[in-house]
Amino acid sequence: MSFEAAVAKIRDEMRLRDWDQFHSPENLSKSISIEAAELLECFQWKDNPDISRVKEELADVLTYCLLLADKYDLDPAEIVLEKLEKTKEKYPVEKARGKSEKYDRL
Amino acid sequence: MSFEAAVAKIRDEMRLRDWDQFHSPENLSKSISIEAAELLECFQWKDNPDISRVKEELADVLTYCLLLADKYDLDPAEIVLEKLEKTKEKYPVEKARGKSEKYDRL
Amino acid sequence: MSFEAAVAKIRDEMRLRDWDQFHSPENLSKSISIEAAELLECFQWKDNPDISRVKEELADVLTYCLLLADKYDLDPAEIVLEKLEKTKEKYPVEKARGKSEKYDRL
Amino acid sequence: MSFEAAVAKIRDEMRLRDWDQFHSPENLSKSISIEAAELLECFQWKDNPDISRVKEELADVLTYCLLLADKYDLDPAEIVLEKLEKTKEKYPVEKARGKSEKYDRL
Repeated sequence: MSFEAAVAKIRDEMRLRDWDQFHSPENLSKSISIEAAELLECFQWKDNPDISRVKEELADVLTYCLLLADKYDLDPAEIVLEKLEKTKEKYPVEKARGKSEKYDRL
Repeated sequence: MSFEAAVAKIRDEMRLRDWDQFHSPENLSKSISIEAAELLECFQWKDNPDISRVKEELADVLTYCLLLADKYDLDPAEIVLEKLEKTKEKYPVEKARGKSEKYDRL
Repeated sequence: MSFEAAVAKIRDEMRLRDWDQFHSPENLSKSISIEAAELLECFQWKDNPDISRVKEELADVLTYCLLLADKYDLDPAEIVLEKLEKTKEKYPVEKARGKSEKYDRL
Repeated sequence: MSFEAAVAKIRDEMRLRDWDQFHSPENLSKSISIEAAELLECFQWKDNPDISRVKEELADVLTYCLLLADKYDLDPAEIVLEKLEKTKEKYPVEKARGKSEKYDRL
């Protein structure tokens, strides 16, 4: 199933529950941070996490990201690719190869 | 463009820069939290953010989410829908309608 | 210098700048998450961070924590010790020794 | 009770449980982010939180901050005050008064 179809399904369920009132961009951004931390918790003390939990927490982060994109009429794949173009410019292959430094320290 | 095509493009650029060595699931999870907080920063003192910054920070969160999904061979749309099914069970329409409480307090 | 004296000094500077209006408990909580992520960024791709940056980011997290405690008239040392008592109960030495599992999995 | 006495007590309990092995600076930083998000969760959908939960989550953030400071032999009150000096320089009263903008936008 495509991402658009998934977003439409999420939107339907939210509407059925009258949850749109809670989903201000600010609240969605808080929720993304909260779920991101639950994902990070899978790796809090170790680096071999319970994959089924990672899957669920990652799904939560993604769900709120899709809802936020939807609020601003942004196409998720499109903004990801736009950002990739900027990353390519900031990190030219010959300078950034094999390095984890920020672009302003390369 | 579809999400899969976007992921393939990201993967190519990462490989060109030999960045795969940094992208352990744990590091990607930290990166998701870090970028989520940069998104939240758009709303730190106000609720009317600079949309172009929101767009970029959201793209960063999504990019790392896609890379993490890719690590575990998870289909992003699929895990989002699987999670939606669980949410539907935990939050039946008649009980959850118009409420923001957690399922164990409904 | 004691913590109380430090808090008093921070409070004075905030007041001089008329920043109290921005420091709702919610905004302070967002700020704690944002600064916590900047601290985490010191460890994003490596585990040997720039100590002087760790020091500054940790100071930022602490500053917002102190401001939030102050909002609710909580004594930082006291709430830390109260929580320690709960931790001691939840994690009895003989059960928790050498383990990083959550108390409900011990 | 002073902060130093609190830190000494925390350190004792950690040692009794042999938890020091888990408390690398990196793991502590992850933990600070995770607990900061639990604090933020108190404000996820509303701005009038359950104060007793705020108190506990704030205590968790502070506890990990104190443990991290302890790792690097940093005095919490001292680094907070050092940072306050920097903030005072970056945000002169006359320029920053009543504004929430970052120093580079004042």
